[in-house]
Amino acid sequence: MRSVHKLKKIELYSIIHYTGYICILLGLVMLVPIIVALIYGEYKFITPFIYSSIVSLVIGILLFKKFNNKKEISLKSAMIFVTLIWLIGSAIAALPYYLSGDLSYFNAFFEAMSGFTTTGFSMYNLDHASFTMNFWRAFTQWLGGIGIIVMALTVLSSPGVNIMRMYSAEGREERLAPSIRHTSRIILYIYLLYTAISIILFKLAGMPVFDSIFYAFTALSTGGFALENASISIYHNIWIELVAMIVMILGATNFALHYTLLKGNWREYFKDIESKVSWILLIGGTLLVALFLYNGSVYGHDIFTSLRYSAFQVVTALTTSGLQTANPSDISVQWDGLGIFILTLLMIIGAGACSTGGGIKWLRIGILVKGMWWEIKSLLLPQSAVISRKIHHVGDIKINENLLRLTGLFVFSYIVVYIISVIIVLFYYQNLSQVLFEVASGLSNVGLGSSLLTPSSPMVVKLVFMIDMWIGRLEIWPILLLMAIAVQNTIRR
Amino acid sequence: MRSVHKLKKIELYSIIHYTGYICILLGLVMLVPIIVALIYGEYKFITPFIYSSIVSLVIGILLFKKFNNKKEISLKSAMIFVTLIWLIGSAIAALPYYLSGDLSYFNAFFEAMSGFTTTGFSMYNLDHASFTMNFWRAFTQWLGGIGIIVMALTVLSSPGVNIMRMYSAEGREERLAPSIRHTSRIILYIYLLYTAISIILFKLAGMPVFDSIFYAFTALSTGGFALENASISIYHNIWIELVAMIVMILGATNFALHYTLLKGNWREYFKDIESKVSWILLIGGTLLVALFLYNGSVYGHDIFTSLRYSAFQVVTALTTSGLQTANPSDISVQWDGLGIFILTLLMIIGAGACSTGGGIKWLRIGILVKGMWWEIKSLLLPQSAVISRKIHHVGDIKINENLLRLTGLFVFSYIVVYIISVIIVLFYYQNLSQVLFEVASGLSNVGLGSSLLTPSSPMVVKLVFMIDMWIGRLEIWPILLLMAIAVQNTIRR
Ligand SMILES: [K+]
Ligand SMILES: [K+]
Repeated sequence: MRSVHKLKKIELYSIIHYTGYICILLGLVMLVPIIVALIYGEYKFITPFIYSSIVSLVIGILLFKKFNNKKEISLKSAMIFVTLIWLIGSAIAALPYYLSGDLSYFNAFFEAMSGFTTTGFSMYNLDHASFTMNFWRAFTQWLGGIGIIVMALTVLSSPGVNIMRMYSAEGREERLAPSIRHTSRIILYIYLLYTAISIILFKLAGMPVFDSIFYAFTALSTGGFALENASISIYHNIWIELVAMIVMILGATNFALHYTLLKGNWREYFKDIESKVSWILLIGGTLLVALFLYNGSVYGHDIFTSLRYSAFQVVTALTTSGLQTANPSDISVQWDGLGIFILTLLMIIGAGACSTGGGIKWLRIGILVKGMWWEIKSLLLPQSAVISRKIHHVGDIKINENLLRLTGLFVFSYIVVYIISVIIVLFYYQNLSQVLFEVASGLSNVGLGSSLLTPSSPMVVKLVFMIDMWIGRLEIWPILLLMAIAVQNTIRR
Repeated sequence: MRSVHKLKKIELYSIIHYTGYICILLGLVMLVPIIVALIYGEYKFITPFIYSSIVSLVIGILLFKKFNNKKEISLKSAMIFVTLIWLIGSAIAALPYYLSGDLSYFNAFFEAMSGFTTTGFSMYNLDHASFTMNFWRAFTQWLGGIGIIVMALTVLSSPGVNIMRMYSAEGREERLAPSIRHTSRIILYIYLLYTAISIILFKLAGMPVFDSIFYAFTALSTGGFALENASISIYHNIWIELVAMIVMILGATNFALHYTLLKGNWREYFKDIESKVSWILLIGGTLLVALFLYNGSVYGHDIFTSLRYSAFQVVTALTTSGLQTANPSDISVQWDGLGIFILTLLMIIGAGACSTGGGIKWLRIGILVKGMWWEIKSLLLPQSAVISRKIHHVGDIKINENLLRLTGLFVFSYIVVYIISVIIVLFYYQNLSQVLFEVASGLSNVGLGSSLLTPSSPMVVKLVFMIDMWIGRLEIWPILLLMAIAVQNTIRR
């Protein structure tokens, strides 16, 4: 990272090499939806996937073979690799949407990006989407989810990159296990286990088999793609809602913490700062929103129904999942005011670190609040007083100056990106609270909708959302990369 | 400040002593509006002021004499004194509004608070306000303005309190002159000079004499009280608007910088970080809002008129003045979207440090942006690289870690207070963009209105605004004070 502008040939080669590797993987997973097409007799969708798969495999094998990887990939290369792979991966995963004739290539790219980043905004009119395409949509989110966790636990958690550096900064073990490969395997097992459990739970709650698989994929990955325009409200089934809430919370919880819990160390959950932050926000948010819905008789003057709608929407916002039981157009009208404001705040705060979720992250919020409290304490106590600056998150973590400043930098950059995006979108849409809501939904990879972003939205707006989904998913890293290049260029002159 | 809960008797006495001093001053200035009443033949307003003056003088003399000040007032006592004096002063200045029968005591207190904090929200129906009462309204703002500058340059700039500590942190001279008394005198002279110039300019631009004095008072103090419900739009005079813009910018500029400039050191203005921050925001904001107004044909599809309305509202928001040419009800409807969003952002950013204005302050924004830039640089450059961490503001200022963290703490607290206030007000008003706008207007002591806060608003909402005006004016200090007491109590246990 020290000299971003001087990317050595060998580094470039290893980036291309790994890109090839991902293309091959994509080419292979594209064969899975063909099974769905065969089962449901949607034969016309077989060829798009075959063509897409061939394109992907050919490109992949060429890059993988031609650009041999001579040595271990460096951190710098890994960072640039993850920055680009979301774009390249989406470009390829968009092919089936496009080749099937369902979407324009631009919209197909959006759909793929929204899938891999587990955001969940859709360019489909869901009343006419096929089983095959719906499976592909959910599958991209499921793949994106595992990709995000692995990326967060390995590349993004490296020193000098961002706040996750804490995992290594104090000489603690940086990863669940020493190598990326090992980490990925453990995470994959946990992820597969949770997926299976989720499918069973959804089935037991009363969903058809296809729907169970679909929603297990999109809920655990906090992706939020839906089978119907009305999302899961169409089931009118409180058990399904409860299962969805549990699965979304599972997906939004740090997978390093899941690993610790699964090893039997249950106490860790209650000691963890993220648990505290998330439950305070969840309960506080639910009560406030329920009060708002009840006062305004949005779902009748009924405290139970108000709580039901409130809890679901608060969970989906806080876990950045984006499944919804509230109608999108209701959110922009009847939820306007306190309802939309609280959801917006929760979406910006976002999910747990090293989870499938997005946003600023519970960990960073916890660090900031604690940091501010220590700051006030040190300001007001005698200078001799010693303040313990520790938090508990998958082990004790000492919070040093550096970490606090990096966290501040992250939040500041996040807000700047948010404000700029809001300003641009406001040139096309005038309803401020709706724009604040949906831009937060895009940047934090939530996908909760209020009927603003639709297939017929202007290209510029879609572009802003795509860039936001990308920046949000990569935790501001692309911005820092651009800044780095700017800094380097200022220096060189 | 080290032990807030242990306020020594002698310190309490000096706080009461100085409170008495301010009451005496208030009792004396209350005699001035009587002259206005005599000139305009509004004799029925004479007795309310005489009664108020007597009450104020009696209380003042009692406190001043009974609680003798044995030694120099300590910083701690001074901080508590300024925290309380805005409340006590407002309680007294409210008397004439109440005794004249114009307002209930609660509304009178609000009006006085809005005056002294130079916020400018009014409980009056201005179509029926008398000359005498209007003079008193403007006069409280003018008095508040000078009070704020003196407070900012002396008490609030002391070490350990807030960001203004920079004035002393690096061994530089903390004040314009060594003592509060001396500082106050210099500031008063500058303030009087500017007031005279403002009156003349308004008169030359075409205002009647009374109006010139009124608006000189409320524009220079960035107070924003108006003579008419439609504020100064009723003049339909571009020269008056230009004069108002200049006077508001004067009032929102650091008076320590004014002092330097008046001594002939003109270059300082162009080197100062606040000048850069303010002009970037002013020009950028004006262009964006003008584009918005033009696109939406809010004032006709006319680029000149759009610029005229845009520039005035941007200046009034950025200087936290609150005079307006745009109709309040237009702001909540036709300005909704980009217009209201930009104004809200500018109000939160606020005016210059050590000026009559409110908000986060240009200086703090400058420090944060610079700080973030240094952070990114240090993250990306070799560790051996030396980064100069200086800004220019009334002299060179080295920005150390401590100062950056204090600035971060300030902004964080400001946003927390803002969000909590928004949530409370949302229980009474549903229009989110309007609530975001007016709460920012209150907390940053702006007073720009969009017809939300009116004399008939619920008591809770008025109370939230009063507390916000107070917290905003005291630069979050009351919150820190409360926190301090909380910290002390946690320790004592
Ligand atoms: K999502
Ligand atoms: K004001």
